[in-house]
Amino acid sequence: MAVSLAELARQFHGKVKGDPELTINRVASLESAGPGDIAYLSDRKYLAKLAKTAAGAVIVTEADASHFSGPALIVNDPHLCFARVAQFLNPFLKFSPGVHATAVIESGAQVAATAWIGPHSVVEAGAKIGDDAFVGPGCFIGKGAELGARNRLIGHVTIGERCVFGTDCVIYPGAVIGGDGFGFARNGERWQKVPQLGRVVMGNDVEVGANTTIDRGALDDTVIGNGVKLDNLIQIAHNVQIGDNTAIAACVGIAGSTIIGQRCTLGGQSGIVGHLEITDDVHVTAGSLVTSSIREAGVYSSSLKAMPVDKWRRNAAVLHRLEEMSQRLRKIEESLELRSKEHKN
Amino acid sequence: MAVSLAELARQFHGKVKGDPELTINRVASLESAGPGDIAYLSDRKYLAKLAKTAAGAVIVTEADASHFSGPALIVNDPHLCFARVAQFLNPFLKFSPGVHATAVIESGAQVAATAWIGPHSVVEAGAKIGDDAFVGPGCFIGKGAELGARNRLIGHVTIGERCVFGTDCVIYPGAVIGGDGFGFARNGERWQKVPQLGRVVMGNDVEVGANTTIDRGALDDTVIGNGVKLDNLIQIAHNVQIGDNTAIAACVGIAGSTIIGQRCTLGGQSGIVGHLEITDDVHVTAGSLVTSSIREAGVYSSSLKAMPVDKWRRNAAVLHRLEEMSQRLRKIEESLELRSKEHKN
Amino acid sequence: MAVSLAELARQFHGKVKGDPELTINRVASLESAGPGDIAYLSDRKYLAKLAKTAAGAVIVTEADASHFSGPALIVNDPHLCFARVAQFLNPFLKFSPGVHATAVIESGAQVAATAWIGPHSVVEAGAKIGDDAFVGPGCFIGKGAELGARNRLIGHVTIGERCVFGTDCVIYPGAVIGGDGFGFARNGERWQKVPQLGRVVMGNDVEVGANTTIDRGALDDTVIGNGVKLDNLIQIAHNVQIGDNTAIAACVGIAGSTIIGQRCTLGGQSGIVGHLEITDDVHVTAGSLVTSSIREAGVYSSSLKAMPVDKWRRNAAVLHRLEEMSQRLRKIEESLELRSKEHKN
Repeated sequence: MAVSLAELARQFHGKVKGDPELTINRVASLESAGPGDIAYLSDRKYLAKLAKTAAGAVIVTEADASHFSGPALIVNDPHLCFARVAQFLNPFLKFSPGVHATAVIESGAQVAATAWIGPHSVVEAGAKIGDDAFVGPGCFIGKGAELGARNRLIGHVTIGERCVFGTDCVIYPGAVIGGDGFGFARNGERWQKVPQLGRVVMGNDVEVGANTTIDRGALDDTVIGNGVKLDNLIQIAHNVQIGDNTAIAACVGIAGSTIIGQRCTLGGQSGIVGHLEITDDVHVTAGSLVTSSIREAGVYSSSLKAMPVDKWRRNAAVLHRLEEMSQRLRKIEESLELRSKEHKN
Repeated sequence: MAVSLAELARQFHGKVKGDPELTINRVASLESAGPGDIAYLSDRKYLAKLAKTAAGAVIVTEADASHFSGPALIVNDPHLCFARVAQFLNPFLKFSPGVHATAVIESGAQVAATAWIGPHSVVEAGAKIGDDAFVGPGCFIGKGAELGARNRLIGHVTIGERCVFGTDCVIYPGAVIGGDGFGFARNGERWQKVPQLGRVVMGNDVEVGANTTIDRGALDDTVIGNGVKLDNLIQIAHNVQIGDNTAIAACVGIAGSTIIGQRCTLGGQSGIVGHLEITDDVHVTAGSLVTSSIREAGVYSSSLKAMPVDKWRRNAAVLHRLEEMSQRLRKIEESLELRSKEHKN
Repeated sequence: MAVSLAELARQFHGKVKGDPELTINRVASLESAGPGDIAYLSDRKYLAKLAKTAAGAVIVTEADASHFSGPALIVNDPHLCFARVAQFLNPFLKFSPGVHATAVIESGAQVAATAWIGPHSVVEAGAKIGDDAFVGPGCFIGKGAELGARNRLIGHVTIGERCVFGTDCVIYPGAVIGGDGFGFARNGERWQKVPQLGRVVMGNDVEVGANTTIDRGALDDTVIGNGVKLDNLIQIAHNVQIGDNTAIAACVGIAGSTIIGQRCTLGGQSGIVGHLEITDDVHVTAGSLVTSSIREAGVYSSSLKAMPVDKWRRNAAVLHRLEEMSQRLRKIEESLELRSKEHKN
């Protein structure tokens, strides 16, 4: 696809510096871009790269435009504009609607005339596939599940029975949405399974990464809000609720019945234990563990950073007798009368 | 399915309070239940919800029965009873035995006449599928693998060659049982693969969550005991042994050759390094790392809890010079003669 | 397969002690080996097992040979030799080339005459499958992806469009290579997807474990070097680069654009945040989090080890007021004139 710089400016509310008729074919990074490519400045620390790029044009702020001698698309938010230009130049592939000869559509399933069901996919009885939905190869849509318009299942996706999706979701391979929650009652030494009868209910415009798992609720539903973005290998347990536009990085685990607010971000490998409430606009750093409810917006952390192992082990050894150190410190303070014996820390 | 309260009491050894002929159609939570539903009190902190529920009946202990004015099923363990009632009202779906037209059963595979093999599943030569087993869509059962009676593979499950399952296991989508263990010998700068020749041997009544991986043993087998429950996205490495009725939450990793006892529980995102022995009745909290064998039953932890990031970083900075602090503390004690210079900490 | 001890010695550059005509059928562990089996001593702490093994022969160093009374294959590196002998006795199964009747090969795909495409696999237009490659059941090879010679996809593997593999890679079930990276630009409260236009480019002799995910690059490529070994359930984000012969244990997460050197090892559940550079020969212990670039080879750690929970919680409580303790310590030092008030720590 080719487009003029002027046309991009018109569509994405920017201003052209230089030749408005310059043809843009492709987006690229500052390092790899050539003539015909448009790149962008993601961070001012890369100003030197901006000056040296071979890109045909760049997307920059007014303030940074002088660092590039060629044509530019001037906008307030280059990253957002770049994302839109990239999407414009790389639209989702068009597909011809239909059902592949090897797909299995059970009797009683409803597939929109404008949808595509790929090879070896299975749509069970009672399931509904919405308008313009794309179901890639090897997907499994369980009984009574409902996918809204324009859902895109890339391939090898599993949607459990009765789960309900909004519109415009994108689901990557290996994602399993609607497996049973992990619910058991103790029965002496053994475990008695608690049937998992709820659903997963997803909003619109949700993205679910590869091999991520979202369990169905035990009695009530697991609920994923609009615009939620989930990276790969995430575990969302039964009855979790995630607020609109929250984004979660890879390898995160969220235990059962926890409620997460809107616009939160959870760093990679962080974890949240069960039955908590996390308010809106909470950000958790990578590798941190949240063990109690968070009622104030802000950034939270409990992660430690790796250091050379010898030094780390000596520090960690002290950590394992911190309580004793604390008591020794108090004893010194008492002996120095820096702290009265009655004073409780 | 509909059943009288009296019939539930008879089957699950409870006592009826109120109308024994009340018809129960469904289990539900205290919040969402209506007439015709039976709910239960999971924790006494929800007594206020019990008083207000619109449930037709509830499952409670004798001691709590007075908090609900309607009919009740009185038992010693409401959670366990509820699990059984829920299972009774929601039995596994009946299926007609057979092999779907799109399934591939290699010559030499044995499928019981009462089993079901779903669409696009593959059963390789020498594999055996037991009585009343259910193999959902898109499963892959490798050469010589054996599934006992009443196994249920929901769909998209991979069982590697020669692995052996007991009876009544339930395996969720994306689980991979019997992939190669991660075994390599150093060969200068390169790695020489060590063939993984063992199997995965599973007991009866095991549940394996979505996208969980259990590797085959290197020479001997990886062994999963009876009644073991594994949540989603768990990694069990080669030659691990897990004792009966141990339950493991999501995102846990267990490294090679570790032996875990019976009735243990491992919290989410916890990890156990290789070649350890963990005795029976050990419980590990979420996010903890076990780096040495545990010979006494009990609860073990090494997890830190997230706090506001500024406070956390100041504390963590001190942690990175704990050894130095410890030495300064000793020096003070010596100067105060609280500790003699000869005394070794 | 059966082979004489003499033949093994010839092939793997060892020396025979005892009967060179002894026939070896199988590799086994010291504990489970019987006559006809060859075992090896993996660590000198198992010398007692070596003395008692019923193995027909063992692989040992010259120094340890006297601990076993039977025939032996004497080599410098018994582990490496054992790996090779095991591979020799257990070669990859031969397969007849061809395309299973249920596989879907789109027009324009190229499958080598010596390759095998298994049941229900899909090879999209423009994809190329190299000589002697084995594609097991239920795989999905996207448009324009290229697999080199002798790749082995065990089954249920997803390779995204345009990804390129070298030769001799082994990919386990559930691995997803070439899903979209997790890239979004903020758009007010919402997230605007950044199209992920790069590829995954893999070297030769790479092993990718079950349910591991490797995302395609955003603009440029994600690059996996030659001889890299990845265990199960690993997340490799967009634009990561991994150097030759680096080995990564299960449940590791590597965030976007991080560059990892050659011959590194990352322990299970460790994590590396984004945009870092890790030099060659760096080793990270299990459960550690790397938050800044590492420029010197060595071992790095930030993991804590589990202890009984009561003791742990008392220590952890002190950790949460470490900064305050540090200030109290300084105050004592000042009062004792061990440290001048001007001195900055």
